[in-house]
Amino acid sequence: MNFIEERIKRDGVVLADDVIRVDSFLNHQIDVALFQQIGAEFARRFDKIPITKILTVEASGIAVAVASSFYFNAVPVVFAKKQAAKNLREACYTADVFSYTKGVTTTIRIDKRFLSVDDHVLILDDFLANGNAAMGLIEIAEAAGATVGGVGVVIEKAYQDGRKRLEESGYRVEALARIIGMDEQKVVFADS
Amino acid sequence: MNFIEERIKRDGVVLADDVIRVDSFLNHQIDVALFQQIGAEFARRFDKIPITKILTVEASGIAVAVASSFYFNAVPVVFAKKQAAKNLREACYTADVFSYTKGVTTTIRIDKRFLSVDDHVLILDDFLANGNAAMGLIEIAEAAGATVGGVGVVIEKAYQDGRKRLEESGYRVEALARIIGMDEQKVVFADS
Repeated sequence: MNFIEERIKRDGVVLADDVIRVDSFLNHQIDVALFQQIGAEFARRFDKIPITKILTVEASGIAVAVASSFYFNAVPVVFAKKQAAKNLREACYTADVFSYTKGVTTTIRIDKRFLSVDDHVLILDDFLANGNAAMGLIEIAEAAGATVGGVGVVIEKAYQDGRKRLEESGYRVEALARIIGMDEQKVVFADS
Repeated sequence: MNFIEERIKRDGVVLADDVIRVDSFLNHQIDVALFQQIGAEFARRFDKIPITKILTVEASGIAVAVASSFYFNAVPVVFAKKQAAKNLREACYTADVFSYTKGVTTTIRIDKRFLSVDDHVLILDDFLANGNAAMGLIEIAEAAGATVGGVGVVIEKAYQDGRKRLEESGYRVEALARIIGMDEQKVVFADS
């Protein structure tokens, strides 16, 4: 097991209805020392890809993206916003993303000023399940004419079809931990 | 002018109704190289304070907190969540925060597992205006019996009463840029 799988095994808690709670280190309390390892590992895996920006979605994706940027020459992070705000400009790229966890469709948006045809973007997030969030970010990046260099996630629910959808659309996916099954007793990873 | 004031002067855009748009570097697109300077500066200013955790509120506060943690020995970041989620435990400390920007009261919450009487917390955020968000985080930290070492913000709207409220409650406030007035032509900083 790698460092993320070890940590999930130690501190992750499987709840009912396909939810794994990793809020003690990943998406509520953030173990920044662990995130430094995460960032370094993404940089190692995407070493050959020229990246000009990291894209993610608020809120927990921001931590993954910002920590990882330290290992990608501090390239800018752009995070998609989930609701219209008073000070968000109207000239935005948008995509609709359905979240099974929350049971709602959210419109995510990125201001058009922050993506261009010259950008090579890396999409980072904490989780990949059905791939809706990543597909939404790809839709936005492509609307801007940017090149998508790949998708990196900390934890993949590999029994869902997110990876399949992304790979069939031509995108490379890197997941630091790939869960192929879980119940309240244990979590099973791919290749372990 | 320091590096943040320079950047606000260069890239900040003052809109009507007391809103300054800094989304090209602070809270939508994140200039991580700038955030490295921000983190180093907070570490310099809070050098004598023992810090075990950094507290903030989602979403844009997460970027400030995570980047800054790199300069505080990678102490954990805990970000308060703004809504009840399916996978958020019910044993939470909560506080109600009214946002003038959005015109709504939001309940922020932090899981009780992530704060204890042994914690010395530093509260970091992108903006300080009326101080409601910081006061909410302080309320939560004190409910947990934690010690609040101070409040650091990137931009203070110094013509509002946030600093006064925090200082009168006994908390140290460090703001990297203190705006004392602004209109569509210019931004005026304290001590400049």
